[in-house]
Amino acid sequence: MNKEFVIGIDLGGTKINTAIVDFQGNIIKQINIPTLANEGENVVLNRIIKTIDEVLNKSEIKIENIRAIGIGAPGPLDSKEGIIITTPNLPFKNFNIINPIKKIYNINTYIDNDGNVAAIGEHTFGAGKGSKNMIYITVSTGIGGGAILNGNIYRGNTCNALEVGHMTLDPKGPLCNCGNYGCAEVLASGTSIGRQGRQAIEKKVITSLSKYSDITAYEVFNEAKNGDKVCGEIVNKSLNYLGICIANLVSIFDPEVVIIGGGVSKAGEVVFNTVKDVVKMRCFKILADSCEILPAKLSTNSGAIGAAALALREENIL
Amino acid sequence: MNKEFVIGIDLGGTKINTAIVDFQGNIIKQINIPTLANEGENVVLNRIIKTIDEVLNKSEIKIENIRAIGIGAPGPLDSKEGIIITTPNLPFKNFNIINPIKKIYNINTYIDNDGNVAAIGEHTFGAGKGSKNMIYITVSTGIGGGAILNGNIYRGNTCNALEVGHMTLDPKGPLCNCGNYGCAEVLASGTSIGRQGRQAIEKKVITSLSKYSDITAYEVFNEAKNGDKVCGEIVNKSLNYLGICIANLVSIFDPEVVIIGGGVSKAGEVVFNTVKDVVKMRCFKILADSCEILPAKLSTNSGAIGAAALALREENIL
Repeated sequence: MNKEFVIGIDLGGTKINTAIVDFQGNIIKQINIPTLANEGENVVLNRIIKTIDEVLNKSEIKIENIRAIGIGAPGPLDSKEGIIITTPNLPFKNFNIINPIKKIYNINTYIDNDGNVAAIGEHTFGAGKGSKNMIYITVSTGIGGGAILNGNIYRGNTCNALEVGHMTLDPKGPLCNCGNYGCAEVLASGTSIGRQGRQAIEKKVITSLSKYSDITAYEVFNEAKNGDKVCGEIVNKSLNYLGICIANLVSIFDPEVVIIGGGVSKAGEVVFNTVKDVVKMRCFKILADSCEILPAKLSTNSGAIGAAALALREENIL
Repeated sequence: MNKEFVIGIDLGGTKINTAIVDFQGNIIKQINIPTLANEGENVVLNRIIKTIDEVLNKSEIKIENIRAIGIGAPGPLDSKEGIIITTPNLPFKNFNIINPIKKIYNINTYIDNDGNVAAIGEHTFGAGKGSKNMIYITVSTGIGGGAILNGNIYRGNTCNALEVGHMTLDPKGPLCNCGNYGCAEVLASGTSIGRQGRQAIEKKVITSLSKYSDITAYEVFNEAKNGDKVCGEIVNKSLNYLGICIANLVSIFDPEVVIIGGGVSKAGEVVFNTVKDVVKMRCFKILADSCEILPAKLSTNSGAIGAAALALREENIL
């Protein structure tokens, strides 16, 4: 029997997205269920197993056709041992999530953090296909990333490399959730952009944002686009910091391509134009000229497709 | 005849240091001559060749005993092709420096930029021996670096990775020579520390520095050690920026070890204590706890020994 498929699992704090994926990165069948993270580690583990069984049942593909299973989860985790160390939105504490799945299905199973998985996905099937040195950065609730160096994912000493969201960009900047001041995440994430919008309202600044009851980065970008000056300044300031973050990554990695994903990247041209301008201004010409800055190609299913790509890479299929 | 030695050449703007080095990193014989950079590219090339001939003549080692030649030079350069692209302190412009040497001696010859060569040297024979992921940073006139990732030097797309001196650490900071504002180099290099000392004198601030006619980082560190408050503040501020630079590298690379070399590192404890404190404060605990921060071991001859190590690595001897 041909083992022509892999299963990719995107394990998030709110939902589990599990997909059967072929070797070309196409989703054959997928299933989405809530994580129910607050019900504890064994409940969540059983829900993951349930998604695997259900996605197989819904398709004509048998477990014998599955070559390997890949999982993407929030870090920090130990990808070599398959252990989720701890993470704010999931119940696992030093929990080996790989072994029980391997035991049930007798299939090689791999895990990596969501930044690495998304980077592997973009490099295998997305905007970074064929590149040798590629940096992926996701800008949404937080800022995370992953690096493909000389064609392979770079994990670092404790599997926690590319904590790009916690690079200091302004030593006297605001306090970040991590305890540090002036991190990229507190200056340029979607959360930060939304918060700056709400702060403008609290300070009773005149802005078209006041018509909304709930303000997120989405509303701030929209009103900036509609010409609101306050929102324009918030967007400009935040994207300038994002540009500095990426310029620093370009000076450090000398990459062929930087790929920006996550909710903030969906704001489109304004993001990419600002980032490109800052990189041009702050990096050596040879570095800026040789590096493309592109939007991510895999969107809502990037976690599941990336996890599938992880499995394919670890099995040396791709 | 056994080929038991390599030649390492440290090509600098002011001097050429050429050494015969054994496979354990010991210098057997060396020679130092001025570069005479202003006399043009062919003069400098001939001076390099002269050092090779002389160092062999001075020893009992014959050219037949030399396995390979390594060169370290300021970048940007193309290490694959052996071309020095351009550099402020040397006369070469898109000059292939490898081919004429290969032609004369019929020996494999390799070149890399001085940051990479020093990193390879520390990883092969110095403080980073045996580590898997190691970052080297040199803090002297400028700030440069190199990275050993998964045991190999990481060069990037155009051989210009690890431009750590031009990471932005303070977007509104002073103008750097590179045209950018708030780079690590303009905030924390030896040049910057000396300049801040001279600026204090110009502003007629009361400081024990006023007894010197010529103020460099050396005098500022000395007077800080002797209790001068102004110098203490300069040192503290600059080393804090150096700490942020290194903290950002730790968040990005999750390395086993960061090695600090260059003139500023010679100031000793104050440098390492400040950097370690900042890393602890600004990085995730798992990253800070698992990363050693050490002084470079190879000192004055780090360029020549590093170049020898480059040759040994490229020949797959080490």
